Parts: sequence; structure tokens; C-alpha cells
Amino acid sequence: MFAARQLAALLECAPMFAEILTIGDELTRGEIVDSNSSWLAGQLWDLDVTVRWMTSCRDDEADLRRAVTEAAGRADLVLCSGGLGPTEDDLTVDVVSALAGVVPVIDEAARARLEMFLGARQAPMMPLQLRQVRIPTGATVLANPAGLAPGFEIGIGTTPVVCLPGFPRELHAIWAAGLGDRVRALREARGGAPRIARRIYRVFGRGESQISAACRGVVDDVPGATIHYQVKFPETMVKIVIKDPDGDAARGRLEEVDAALRTRLGPHLYGTGDAALPEVLGATLRDAGLTVATAESCTGGMIAQLLTSAPGSSAYVVGGAVVYANREKERQLGVRPETLASHGAVSEACVREMARGARARFGVDLAVAVSGIAGPDGGTADKPVGTVWLAVARPARRDDAPDADEVDGVVVDTKLLTWPGPRDSVRLLAAWWGLRLLLDAAGGPR
Amino acid sequence: MFAARQLAALLECAPMFAEILTIGDELTRGEIVDSNSSWLAGQLWDLDVTVRWMTSCRDDEADLRRAVTEAAGRADLVLCSGGLGPTEDDLTVDVVSALAGVVPVIDEAARARLEMFLGARQAPMMPLQLRQVRIPTGATVLANPAGLAPGFEIGIGTTPVVCLPGFPRELHAIWAAGLGDRVRALREARGGAPRIARRIYRVFGRGESQISAACRGVVDDVPGATIHYQVKFPETMVKIVIKDPDGDAARGRLEEVDAALRTRLGPHLYGTGDAALPEVLGATLRDAGLTVATAESCTGGMIAQLLTSAPGSSAYVVGGAVVYANREKERQLGVRPETLASHGAVSEACVREMARGARARFGVDLAVAVSGIAGPDGGTADKPVGTVWLAVARPARRDDAPDADEVDGVVVDTKLLTWPGPRDSVRLLAAWWGLRLLLDAAGGPR
Repeated sequence: MFAARQLAALLECAPMFAEILTIGDELTRGEIVDSNSSWLAGQLWDLDVTVRWMTSCRDDEADLRRAVTEAAGRADLVLCSGGLGPTEDDLTVDVVSALAGVVPVIDEAARARLEMFLGARQAPMMPLQLRQVRIPTGATVLANPAGLAPGFEIGIGTTPVVCLPGFPRELHAIWAAGLGDRVRALREARGGAPRIARRIYRVFGRGESQISAACRGVVDDVPGATIHYQVKFPETMVKIVIKDPDGDAARGRLEEVDAALRTRLGPHLYGTGDAALPEVLGATLRDAGLTVATAESCTGGMIAQLLTSAPGSSAYVVGGAVVYANREKERQLGVRPETLASHGAVSEACVREMARGARARFGVDLAVAVSGIAGPDGGTADKPVGTVWLAVARPARRDDAPDADEVDGVVVDTKLLTWPGPRDSVRLLAAWWGLRLLLDAAGGPR
Repeated sequence: MFAARQLAALLECAPMFAEILTIGDELTRGEIVDSNSSWLAGQLWDLDVTVRWMTSCRDDEADLRRAVTEAAGRADLVLCSGGLGPTEDDLTVDVVSALAGVVPVIDEAARARLEMFLGARQAPMMPLQLRQVRIPTGATVLANPAGLAPGFEIGIGTTPVVCLPGFPRELHAIWAAGLGDRVRALREARGGAPRIARRIYRVFGRGESQISAACRGVVDDVPGATIHYQVKFPETMVKIVIKDPDGDAARGRLEEVDAALRTRLGPHLYGTGDAALPEVLGATLRDAGLTVATAESCTGGMIAQLLTSAPGSSAYVVGGAVVYANREKERQLGVRPETLASHGAVSEACVREMARGARARFGVDLAVAVSGIAGPDGGTADKPVGTVWLAVARPARRDDAPDADEVDGVVVDTKLLTWPGPRDSVRLLAAWWGLRLLLDAAGGPR
């Protein structure tokens, strides 16, 4: 019954194919990574538009003509980025105009904006600059709130071709200012477009294969539902997408999957949506009225840097100590020389004292400490590269275990990581675990 | 005369065109950014191979067949990445074999490696796993030092088609292990391939437009020479490439350009080659036997984190203080309450005291301090967002100006940044300026 409904829903909505074309010598010479294609593809996928080809070509008139012709011939929608600037290398307007059978014209509104921009800087208008405010005759202008060159849409044959600047900031702004709605309308105009409900679940502390094993089958009996995994080290995003001709039905089924998925992901799920761990932790600390400090050895300031990356973090970050040398562990945090002598700097005993010392000296509610061997050198048989000890000092709680390490109402929780990997990833993983332990100490994600 | 030689050199070497094809639904759904195309394009460009098309397509047999056929038909060399894994979605071996008119076979050496890998983990071999050690019959295996799936090369028509795994680490390892040499040989086999001399100049402290203005014309009279700019915020790379049929001639002309370019870039040039500012600074500190500490407010630990990102940094990094709250500026660094009250935390007076305090308390040769308004909130008319004060405390030098701020043999140099931008970029720019001031205090780049 479910399968029958699913089939019906799928048959009802024909796929819509799009093609993305990015233009510029800087791409084909490997001077910049093309992030526009991926960004546009993600937006289109969310609107149930299937990207079939993504192509990059040089600033070459014949190649560009060939690329646009081919794309317009096989896709339902073409999105181009690049080649809209003022130089003679910027050929997109000329090539697209010729293929649409029209001539380029100055867009007067864009010219007026350019003149105002130059006037404010008392700069003269140079003839070449007018090239960037041209559009094909009859094209629909797509306002560019973030730059001077307008985007536009024009038909080539029966296919809408959209041309956008190459600067990611401008491309995103044009999408937000109206292009997103326009593509949604094109999708819906093809008839029977499904409504899409989706949610991103952010998971930290397990690998992708463990996560996908835990989630196996969770959407199997849910019509129109798919599950996708995206690793963005050190976290993994799990994305649930539900399509249905009826938006309420899609949202309703999403809530059913939501409950099941949360059970399966368990405590490794730290949030949903756009906010990464530093922001989730920041919001939790702010709401709880808690302050924090850091005591870092191998991460060398990374935890503090991540904590302060969020705007407004001065509400909860008091400060931190980077204690790379052992004498700084003693001087700044009061770690005892005996502890370092008998256990070493990378030990549970050391991070316990670091965390307690930081909490007392900074006068904060929560203090995190980390000491480990990030490599590539410094590993031993006992403590190989990737061995990291973490600790968080926090106020005692009523539900603490009887054997919790409590002194004067302060409890320290510890964690050992053993994750052999390159230096960068050991440090990043350790820093995220520091944030995660702080989140637990602050009462967990809201 | 120069122009004639240049023309001759150009005529002598016919261009060689390559095409890059990246395969996978995760690309066309926008789940990951394709960095392989850019990386390969950069390698090819350095070997004087021109990339004309870069295409991404789905894990779809018909689409993949079309993409490979088209690429092999119009290019002199095709590089594919992706679709070599063990799952049923991994179609590259099957499609490429069919186009080459052969069947896939197990590569016995790769099978043995897979068995050893699984044996060491006491994991059973599952039939599906054998898919990833297949190659087209007759293909040349490209050893993969970083993974289990081998790369390979096979001819389709007269065009060599190279297939590589999608993981960047594996793709880079295969290139380094032999593919780079193979492509160089293909380039040279086309006859009259030029020798290429090149150098990357790393510039920090000026914008791209100022840098390109300073360099204008520097290669105009140099045969076979080109100049390229690549912005990688907050630095800019300037790349000089000299082509000549004679390698010695190319290298000789590079040295001539080198001298002229260094004069033009002046003190903003901090190094050449692969080492970024943190590594250049680290090597300078190590060689000079100097130790450092950090005192950070708005950068929140980023300077310490960058300093400790280099392996072996414990030789020169003693520690750091993250002093986000004003009371920490007083407690950890001894900044006077009067200074904070009369000048504010974002002031030259405050960073002077922070730097002196850090140098004394950490007992180091050099201490850097930073305090600023990273935004988005907190700006005022006097001190808008993007206002950042930096200071470095260092031993006095014989060539210090008579009015240098010297106390007890310690001099503090300061710098004011006013760079309105998003929070992330204000922090990153400020952190790099901190590193740059340390480099100057350590005696400049070697």
C-alpha cells in the first residue's frame, strides 16, 4: 500500500533536469576551486531539480558557444556562472546573445547603479566598465544586491538559460533575491511537482559507517523518503528528504522519521539545521547563563578559537590558557610538578589538574582541558600519536555517580581519545571533543 | 629578437589538450565540493597541458558512457576520478572497459593487498569488495599507495584515459607515485614540449589589485614568461612561469625575473614555494633560537593555533593567553585597570601592556598581542568593526629609532588595522598580521 502510493507520487512528477556551466580560465588552470557548481547543485537538489551535468570551460568563445549550445539542448534549465565582468575576456553576454538571436544592450538600471558607485568614489567611468552592465536584448534582469554586474535569464530554444557572476557572494545574493523563487516556479510549472520536507541531523563522535549502519532501513517503509550522508570531518550530516504532492503529508512523515532517527543516533546527535557544534554550544551556554574557560596543550588555542568564532561569544567566554610548555601548565594552571613527573603531560591526572586549575583561576562555571600527542613526532609505544586526554571541570550535580571525582562541589569528567591520523585531524577532533564535553556539562543540546 | 625567439618557441610546441571528468551523485547533488578537478588542472597546467573541459556527472551508466566517449573523442588525454569503489553504484571500470572493447578482470596484486588489509583486521572478504580491485583487461595499473582501489590507464580509440579514485588523498598519492611522470612523458612525446621554470611568490599585506599594479609589465620583455595571481585570503600568490625548449634558458630567465619581482613586491613578499606564513615564521624562529608567546583578545586563540599547527612547534611556542574578558587582561597579563578605563581594551596603550606583560610572564623572547572589534556588533563611530590593534614586544636592537618605545631593553612595535569585513575575515587577517609582526621581530624571512 505504501509502495503503491510511493510509485504514484513518483509517476506524478516528471524529473526536471538542470545543467550547471562555470566559465573561466582560472578554473581550468586550477587556480581556484569551483564552489559555485556545488552550491547551485545543492540548491537545485533541494527543489527537486536533478543536476545531470556540471561543466567548466575556458574563457574561449568557441568553447563557450559549444558548452551553452549543448547544455541548452539537453537540459530543462541551464545555470551559468562567470564571464560577466568588464574585461575583453568576459564573453558570456556576447555568446549567449548570439545564441538567442539578439544583440547585447546596456541595462539602464545597472548603468545608473554603476555610475552612482563610481560617483561616490569620484572615479571616472571607463568605457570598458560598461561591458559589465550589458544584457541580451529582451532578457529578464536578475538583480544583484551584492555587486555591479546584473544576472539575467533568457531563452535559448525553449530552455531558460540563467547567467550569473562568478563571485560566490554575488551568486548567493542573486539566488536569495529572487532566482530561488524563479527556479521553484519553473519546477512547479512542469506539473505535479512534489512538496519537499527535509531536515539535516548533525552527528559527532561516530564514523560515517557506524552512523549509516545505525540508520539502516529507517526510511524503508516511508513513502517518498530518502536518507543521505555527508561527511564534513569531524562531523557527519544525515539528511532526510521526504517528497509528496501534499506538503502537509511530507511534513507529517518527516516528524515520524524524526522520532525514529533520534533514537537511532542517540547521544551522538548534537543538533539539527545550520548551526555547527560551536554555535550549538554557544547558544546552550548563553541560555544557561554559564561561563567557560579553556586550558589547551596539543590543540594550541583551537578550542578557544572555535568558541570565540560565534558572534556574541564574549557573553560566555572568559578566556583561555595555551600551555604548550610544561612549565606553563604549572605556572598558568597550577598543575603539580609531581603529576607531570610521575604521569607525564599526556595523562588523565594532568588534564584533571588543568581543568580544576583553569576553573578556579578563571573563575568560570565550566573549564575544558586537553593534552595529547598530535604528531607526527612524539609518540611512544604506550602513548602513540593520536593519544589525547580531555577533561571538563563543572559544578557537581544531584545525579552524579557516587564515585564521581568531586572536590569542593566541583566534578571533573574525563575522556581518552586514541585516533591515529594526521596532525591537523587529531587536533581538530580533539578540539571538537572538548566542545562536546562542554555541551554535556552545560546540560546537553536544548 | 626576443619576440622572434618567443614566437619560434611557441610554434615549436603544439598544445596538448586534456579533459577532466569527475563522477558521482554526491557531486551533482552538491553534497561535496569537487576539489579534484582543480587540483588535477593545476598539475596539468604546470606540465603545459591545457585543460579545456572539466565535467562532473552522476553515477549513471548512460551518462558516464556519454561523458567518457565525448571526452576521449575531443581530448589528447582524459583524467577521470570517482566510481572505483566496491558498491553497485561504482560504474567506472565497467563503462570504461566496454568502451575499450575489453572485459573487467581482477588485478591480482590489488586483490592480495585487499586480503592482507582485511586479514590484519580479521575481517572476512565480502564478494562485493572484489569489485574495487578490478581493472579493464590490458590496462596499465597505477599503484595507489594511499588506498585499496588501484588506478589505471587504458586507451579508448587513440586517447589515453586514466581512471583514479575519488578520495583526494588517494588521487594525490597516485599522481606522486608515477602518474605525474607519465603525463610529463606524454607531453614530451608530442614533440618539442617546452621546459618550464616556475616559482610561487607569497605576498601578505596588500590587496590583489595593488599587487598586480606593482607587478605590471614585469614579464613583458621576457620571452615565454607569464604571470598569474591567485588570491587565497588573506594572502595572494604570484606565480611566474617561463617556458622554453631549453630548460637552462628557462631557469636563467626565471632568475632575472626573480630579482625584478622581489624589488616590486618589497616587504610584502614573505616567502616562496609551498610554505605558508605560519611555517615560514616557525622555521625562522627555530633557526634563530627564539621563543614566543601570544596574548589574544579578538582572535581568541587563532594566533596560537596557527603557530602550533606546524609540527615541532614546541621548540619555539611556550604558550599563550586568551584574554577575552577585560578582567583576564588584568589577571593574566597585568594590564592596568587605568589603561582599560581611559583608553579602552581596543587601544594602542592596551596592546602595549598586553605584549609587555606576556613577554615578562611567559619568559619568552617575543610576545604578540592583539585586541580589536571583530564584529558584527561592538563597533562605535570612533572604533568601527574591523578596528584592530596589534603589538609585538621584542629585545631592543642597535638599529631601533631613537624614539622607539624602549623599557629595560624591551621594545614594543605596534600596528593599527582598519579593515571592515565579516567577523571571520577580520579575525583571520588580524591573526596573520600578528604572525607577520613576529616574523619582522625575528629578523624577517630568511
